[in-house]
Amino acid sequence: MNDGGSGEPKVSSSIDFAASGKHFGHLTIPHSRNDSAWGAVRLPVVSVRNGEGPVVVLTGGNHGDEYEGPIALMKLVRALDPAEISGQLIVIPALNFPAVMMATRTSPIDGVNMNRAFPGRRDGTISQMIAHFLQHKIMPRCDALCDIHSGGKTLYFSPFAAYHCLPDRALTGKARAATLAFGAPIALELVELDAEGMLDTAVEEMGKVFVSTELGGGGTTTPHTVAIADAGVRNLLIHFGLNDGRPATRESLGLPATRLMHMPDPGCFLICDDRGIFELLVDLDREVAEGEPVGRIHFPEQPQREPVVYQAGTAGTLIGRTHKSLMEPGDFLALIAKDM
Amino acid sequence: MNDGGSGEPKVSSSIDFAASGKHFGHLTIPHSRNDSAWGAVRLPVVSVRNGEGPVVVLTGGNHGDEYEGPIALMKLVRALDPAEISGQLIVIPALNFPAVMMATRTSPIDGVNMNRAFPGRRDGTISQMIAHFLQHKIMPRCDALCDIHSGGKTLYFSPFAAYHCLPDRALTGKARAATLAFGAPIALELVELDAEGMLDTAVEEMGKVFVSTELGGGGTTTPHTVAIADAGVRNLLIHFGLNDGRPATRESLGLPATRLMHMPDPGCFLICDDRGIFELLVDLDREVAEGEPVGRIHFPEQPQREPVVYQAGTAGTLIGRTHKSLMEPGDFLALIAKDM
Amino acid sequence: MNDGGSGEPKVSSSIDFAASGKHFGHLTIPHSRNDSAWGAVRLPVVSVRNGEGPVVVLTGGNHGDEYEGPIALMKLVRALDPAEISGQLIVIPALNFPAVMMATRTSPIDGVNMNRAFPGRRDGTISQMIAHFLQHKIMPRCDALCDIHSGGKTLYFSPFAAYHCLPDRALTGKARAATLAFGAPIALELVELDAEGMLDTAVEEMGKVFVSTELGGGGTTTPHTVAIADAGVRNLLIHFGLNDGRPATRESLGLPATRLMHMPDPGCFLICDDRGIFELLVDLDREVAEGEPVGRIHFPEQPQREPVVYQAGTAGTLIGRTHKSLMEPGDFLALIAKDM
Amino acid sequence: MNDGGSGEPKVSSSIDFAASGKHFGHLTIPHSRNDSAWGAVRLPVVSVRNGEGPVVVLTGGNHGDEYEGPIALMKLVRALDPAEISGQLIVIPALNFPAVMMATRTSPIDGVNMNRAFPGRRDGTISQMIAHFLQHKIMPRCDALCDIHSGGKTLYFSPFAAYHCLPDRALTGKARAATLAFGAPIALELVELDAEGMLDTAVEEMGKVFVSTELGGGGTTTPHTVAIADAGVRNLLIHFGLNDGRPATRESLGLPATRLMHMPDPGCFLICDDRGIFELLVDLDREVAEGEPVGRIHFPEQPQREPVVYQAGTAGTLIGRTHKSLMEPGDFLALIAKDM
Amino acid sequence: MNDGGSGEPKVSSSIDFAASGKHFGHLTIPHSRNDSAWGAVRLPVVSVRNGEGPVVVLTGGNHGDEYEGPIALMKLVRALDPAEISGQLIVIPALNFPAVMMATRTSPIDGVNMNRAFPGRRDGTISQMIAHFLQHKIMPRCDALCDIHSGGKTLYFSPFAAYHCLPDRALTGKARAATLAFGAPIALELVELDAEGMLDTAVEEMGKVFVSTELGGGGTTTPHTVAIADAGVRNLLIHFGLNDGRPATRESLGLPATRLMHMPDPGCFLICDDRGIFELLVDLDREVAEGEPVGRIHFPEQPQREPVVYQAGTAGTLIGRTHKSLMEPGDFLALIAKDM
Amino acid sequence: MNDGGSGEPKVSSSIDFAASGKHFGHLTIPHSRNDSAWGAVRLPVVSVRNGEGPVVVLTGGNHGDEYEGPIALMKLVRALDPAEISGQLIVIPALNFPAVMMATRTSPIDGVNMNRAFPGRRDGTISQMIAHFLQHKIMPRCDALCDIHSGGKTLYFSPFAAYHCLPDRALTGKARAATLAFGAPIALELVELDAEGMLDTAVEEMGKVFVSTELGGGGTTTPHTVAIADAGVRNLLIHFGLNDGRPATRESLGLPATRLMHMPDPGCFLICDDRGIFELLVDLDREVAEGEPVGRIHFPEQPQREPVVYQAGTAGTLIGRTHKSLMEPGDFLALIAKDM
Repeated sequence: MNDGGSGEPKVSSSIDFAASGKHFGHLTIPHSRNDSAWGAVRLPVVSVRNGEGPVVVLTGGNHGDEYEGPIALMKLVRALDPAEISGQLIVIPALNFPAVMMATRTSPIDGVNMNRAFPGRRDGTISQMIAHFLQHKIMPRCDALCDIHSGGKTLYFSPFAAYHCLPDRALTGKARAATLAFGAPIALELVELDAEGMLDTAVEEMGKVFVSTELGGGGTTTPHTVAIADAGVRNLLIHFGLNDGRPATRESLGLPATRLMHMPDPGCFLICDDRGIFELLVDLDREVAEGEPVGRIHFPEQPQREPVVYQAGTAGTLIGRTHKSLMEPGDFLALIAKDM
Repeated sequence: MNDGGSGEPKVSSSIDFAASGKHFGHLTIPHSRNDSAWGAVRLPVVSVRNGEGPVVVLTGGNHGDEYEGPIALMKLVRALDPAEISGQLIVIPALNFPAVMMATRTSPIDGVNMNRAFPGRRDGTISQMIAHFLQHKIMPRCDALCDIHSGGKTLYFSPFAAYHCLPDRALTGKARAATLAFGAPIALELVELDAEGMLDTAVEEMGKVFVSTELGGGGTTTPHTVAIADAGVRNLLIHFGLNDGRPATRESLGLPATRLMHMPDPGCFLICDDRGIFELLVDLDREVAEGEPVGRIHFPEQPQREPVVYQAGTAGTLIGRTHKSLMEPGDFLALIAKDM
Repeated sequence: MNDGGSGEPKVSSSIDFAASGKHFGHLTIPHSRNDSAWGAVRLPVVSVRNGEGPVVVLTGGNHGDEYEGPIALMKLVRALDPAEISGQLIVIPALNFPAVMMATRTSPIDGVNMNRAFPGRRDGTISQMIAHFLQHKIMPRCDALCDIHSGGKTLYFSPFAAYHCLPDRALTGKARAATLAFGAPIALELVELDAEGMLDTAVEEMGKVFVSTELGGGGTTTPHTVAIADAGVRNLLIHFGLNDGRPATRESLGLPATRLMHMPDPGCFLICDDRGIFELLVDLDREVAEGEPVGRIHFPEQPQREPVVYQAGTAGTLIGRTHKSLMEPGDFLALIAKDM
Repeated sequence: MNDGGSGEPKVSSSIDFAASGKHFGHLTIPHSRNDSAWGAVRLPVVSVRNGEGPVVVLTGGNHGDEYEGPIALMKLVRALDPAEISGQLIVIPALNFPAVMMATRTSPIDGVNMNRAFPGRRDGTISQMIAHFLQHKIMPRCDALCDIHSGGKTLYFSPFAAYHCLPDRALTGKARAATLAFGAPIALELVELDAEGMLDTAVEEMGKVFVSTELGGGGTTTPHTVAIADAGVRNLLIHFGLNDGRPATRESLGLPATRLMHMPDPGCFLICDDRGIFELLVDLDREVAEGEPVGRIHFPEQPQREPVVYQAGTAGTLIGRTHKSLMEPGDFLALIAKDM
Repeated sequence: MNDGGSGEPKVSSSIDFAASGKHFGHLTIPHSRNDSAWGAVRLPVVSVRNGEGPVVVLTGGNHGDEYEGPIALMKLVRALDPAEISGQLIVIPALNFPAVMMATRTSPIDGVNMNRAFPGRRDGTISQMIAHFLQHKIMPRCDALCDIHSGGKTLYFSPFAAYHCLPDRALTGKARAATLAFGAPIALELVELDAEGMLDTAVEEMGKVFVSTELGGGGTTTPHTVAIADAGVRNLLIHFGLNDGRPATRESLGLPATRLMHMPDPGCFLICDDRGIFELLVDLDREVAEGEPVGRIHFPEQPQREPVVYQAGTAGTLIGRTHKSLMEPGDFLALIAKDM
Repeated sequence: MNDGGSGEPKVSSSIDFAASGKHFGHLTIPHSRNDSAWGAVRLPVVSVRNGEGPVVVLTGGNHGDEYEGPIALMKLVRALDPAEISGQLIVIPALNFPAVMMATRTSPIDGVNMNRAFPGRRDGTISQMIAHFLQHKIMPRCDALCDIHSGGKTLYFSPFAAYHCLPDRALTGKARAATLAFGAPIALELVELDAEGMLDTAVEEMGKVFVSTELGGGGTTTPHTVAIADAGVRNLLIHFGLNDGRPATRESLGLPATRLMHMPDPGCFLICDDRGIFELLVDLDREVAEGEPVGRIHFPEQPQREPVVYQAGTAGTLIGRTHKSLMEPGDFLALIAKDM
């Protein structure tokens, strides 16, 4: 039982990441199982490389029920001509591939939340082996990584790109700049409840620029949220210098400028204490005052019982909400952010 | 093994439906099982009765992942003073109660879609016994029944109330009038793909007025869709004469009048032929031309493969869409309706 | 799809029930399934026949988590010499054999409660086919049938034998006499919540004597409850005239006489309205007054919440209780009986 | 709850079976479920029609883990030019389509063995609705039907085509002639343990010619078994007069003539009485004497225990065997046939 | 992948354990999952603190199907006035909270037996994170910990409190004294088959007093076993000096004194070698001689087979038994103890 | 949470491996679970020892769906008289015992592939604890170990024994000699795709001789493959000097000599890129040319689609094939070997 990080990954790649040109290939993760003794998981990966320049990695499907990433990234790599760029773009449209193929947040094979599996284990479960390959073979190559998330089946967000406030102020500044370049309606300085094991943290600990997003959710997409992803990944290529095109800025599209927001207060998170059906009382993007009712829980086993009201823990803008309705204690209800 | 319809239901009610006043009670459906040998399912039911007048039944939770109905009906019965009405209101906020308690469309106990279980069986499964009780003990009492649906976790609709075009033209007229009275943005003359076994059909075959709705979906609610349900059920009480208040008409609220629409063409349904991730290209409520691309399927196992484009089979307004993204052949993609 | 009752059963028997002597054999129920295309269920059955005389059937394992029946019946048939009897004894120690082999109340194959599956279906599920064989091949042969039950994993009873009050008073008298002859501490005139589909009802509708028992429960046995079963089945053979031995009467064993009890009041059943952990406050066999607290429900999610107290709905003796502790609405809590 | 047979099927076909030419289409079986509210099962079907002539139906995948049928039938319909035939060929390569897509014998949706589901139910489960469509829309059109089976994952057969001995001697003769024309190494007059509900029986009861096969098994194929299927379905087209080519007779291929065999004795079936690991002692196609050891059961929990030996119940040729190894009582072990 | 013990726990507490007064709160354990992306487990915890004095921790629900602990501890904390004590009482009534909410021994989330999860892991599964919090945040505060167990669904014990014989004789003496103070009918010097990973071991390795109990079992309670728990936890508060009341000694209640027993012989454990139905031949609390039959296994697949008899491996008192009946090799059958 | 390798195993043995004579016993692996709180797994093990001499270990059932090993080893140990040998034979016929009892490749308890679980963990899952016991208590005693494998349910091989080419040339030579002595039709110098965690690797890293086999597959046996196993294990006893009998060489049996083969080329493995039904075009043991079609994938959802052809990546003999038919990307299709 070796340490998780030592030795060559068990995962192999059909792509030579040092090769020029556009290559569609896959990672092979061995997966011996009852219905395929010598089976494997095949995870698609794409490399587009031309000349010298920065190396940018774009990932989607870190959670398998979030779709703006896989859609925008598959469109990008089909359309992109290597001659358009200087440097290298590595794209993994469906990072937790088994989860994407089952439309679940976590892997149906090992139950793992990919975004808490970093830095991975070379002799671990399927998800841990994928994380380990990224940690040791992809991330060391890159200058920046953008991981496209959405809310998934149980959350919904007003579309934002995000960065973290890191001890390294220069790195924080680069991440904020890239986040603003993405061009989503909101750029959020995000506070994680639990940052350990995230892809975000693993990239940042290597001293590289990391940008994340939350572009809607509910397990589906809209033309609006996909358009934000499409423009955002193109904008990032330009921002990082792979491509010298002109970014599709919000201003150029006649849209209001990106709002720079943060979450300075524990009251930004509204958490459920009850079991029942949630009724949201405030639309996303609306301002709420501290103490204003944001929602309430009704009790289907006892229709006569008065609902429990949940109030905003701080003033600000409602930028996230639960997309499930049958709640239990500890479930997330709503997220409030404030302009910086 | 008796015929499904003969004899007294095995389901019993803690409420005397002939009693005046407001009563919160439950139906008891025997459910002997491994973890409760002498167990039962307890399904909440409410009766509000005052003097003589029409009898109206309101149901929600026919599918367990649709929430505007349970929320609006629980609020209505808590708030309603028997003195406000003349006649009787019977409310079942969570008709497929085991499904509501698990947030699933169909029953987790017997796998049954409640809305294909009518007229039920007295010695059938839990869902069939519930249907049988309604068929024999609730529906014969009533003059009209409104069943509040939404899209559930896998569908999303532009909010509408609906009726069916029946052989009985007088009954059709009454149902259309009630549908318009509900006051949703759209009133739809709905064509069912498979009407057999529906609560709708069972009520209509008794010659009684039936109104249905689809008020959003995705397994959640918005303040907007709940407001439509809240106003709609109140409007119906007035329309059917239980209450002599003034309806909250769309006009009175400064909203555009209800659009009366229909689905005269098989091309109104767009169905999937492929396995992959769906990208919707057209927003709900937008007009589409015949042949216009409405969406496309991307292939996450083969990012290099061009997506398959799906076109509108007829011109009209997009009023329904899939709310899932990982599709397989036979899945519903989109619904187009036309003004009548 | 034929009517359930027509035609020869699909179940076949390796035993010729007309043959003399002691025969251990089995019923074969065809069971084609993924892991055995031409598989079958093999259900052990025993026949002991000698000369002319009454035909008595003894069954255990109608529910697969009740053990006094299988244990006492296996001991009986191993020990019994055909020369000891005049007539025939047919024994099925494990009627719902797939359930017995998984220690579950209902069948793991079809989920069916065998004791609601009568009169069965010849082309039905495994449990329905077993019921159909009994209905058409075993029950017509017999003069009396005794089905040995216990509480199973979720109920516990003060040991009793039982009969039903039937419209046929002569048959009721015979059943009461047999119940008293069994010699359990209590002989109960049992009221069923739902008698349809029971083996009891099927036998009684043929005009034959039926005796049932509840001999403890909790999914286990004690030396005491097995001893009651051992003596009871021997006593029945004598009572029905298969054997001219002397019964092991309670008097002969120095025990108090059998109490004849009944359940004349709906308040005899105490049912749960809450979700939580049940604390029983009264020991089995104790007298309770009407309104006396019998138990209470505690709430593990909210330890600060006061428990809900449940009171006896009538005065009498506590003869049954739940053997589970985590309760939900509709679960059985306690049974009270009264001396006749 | 209507009778299973009345009314139009709920299943619809994208193919007009009256149209000339080659058409690939599908049956749509509505399947509302938790993960697709308005979903459906799409079952591929093919029609090839040219001029007047007999109508022959070929089916595969009646059990989802049998592959010679689907492979040979997909190859046949791709290759076949309508101009080659006079009459009509209807092909369903994967009759229990959900089972084929999961590699299981029975349907993963409803657990139903398709070959015991006839004549089906229009308002039944998915498998019953498919059976109902065949019964009412396909079978009435045809003159003959051949259903290609293999042993599936748990059985293995020496390849044979088969017919049943029916009360209608003329029909039996036609079926035997077609079975011989198929050209498998063995032509078997098959005795069914349980013929009710089979596609075979449903076709025969309409007075139409039915041929079945068992062409290997174990959940896989060999070049040899696929070649038998390929030749067999071509031979049947010629035999039934759709095509005037020359059959690929065994003689023309330099192979020994088809053996005509039967199973006149209950001892032809060898059934397991024990739980353990089976060791077959006799190769398929070998002659066995009555009483000769055919296999034995070893006991992995008790390696010291001597195995139980199973002997041939009659003399003949071993033409079928279990392909599983971990056996339980009631499982099929071996099949012996005799030359007619 | 950090070492299990390093760093701050991921679990957070809503209670400040340093605060005076009575506080009902909860631990929050992050639990991102398919049906709640930002979900958590909420585990109730109670602190009652007043002035200076010893710190005692009481836990129940370490296994989720053991109920005397949760019931007695919820009653205790509701009733206890902080003014009654000097020092601090920390109570966790349902330590493996997810298991308690599903009535299972081990956690339904990660399958972990909480009582083999210590010292836990900060980045482990839910159960391991709970163990880690206790290890690092609760146990270091306390002077003594009492963990209330019962037999759960598959074991039943004659009620006892217990301690271990430790290398530290002084600590052993303190634990024995506390065990005797608990006042159960038996005080047992318990030998663990596998002590690693237990809460017991983790507390003892910190040099703190640990007392355990087994107070009945079978997945239920009786008024008698709950009364022992109620008195026992009160007695411990007095014994440890939090409260200066008078203990409810067995003598003061007119009961026989606590028996001090031990298990000096491997023959104290009786283990099953067979598959079948167990019949216990000896009542709990009865004396058995070495070699005396204690139970036997019957074989429901072969009723003709003689049962296998199990004999006592040593002389003593039967103080524990299996509460399941369908046994397999390796299952525990019975426990014999001897007076010290 | 100790290191996996430290301390005494938690697994105990009922056999004293130092004792002379033949002993049937078992390993006990503690397994506390919901349905047996104090349960265990009992894994049969056999020791035959006489005088001084080499110590050989034979294992079967490393994967639970491979049967030549368990059958041949159970026969061997029953038949073997200790007087026949000099030295010691330790036999574990069903190494992954829980998997053997469920007929699955991997353990149904922990999902672990036993052949990737070495060197095991003393506080790990059931499979890891078994591996740990072998690593620390069995392997250090032995001079050589032979692990009998077959293809299991999803693979099929032309029977071979195998060794690995190790850095230690002397050890490689000894392993090759033992492999040839086994006497299978083929002796293969096997290249593992992933050797880490295998029993093979663990034994070889101790510097001991290791021989493996693949003797057929498909989840069943034939008289031929069992005969190879029977002779092979006897031949090994002679080869290693436990027994001075004469080996059953292939020459002495009139069979062609063992072919010595290897896999010098990555093209020896043929892997699937598609989802569909596999048709193998080449029989096992046939020679194939590089580029020759070996099989093809058909698409049951789209019968009209042409199949995808898979070609041999190198010239050689087909010695392995998939035994499943419904394939997905990454599944193994075929194995080609070349004469050395």
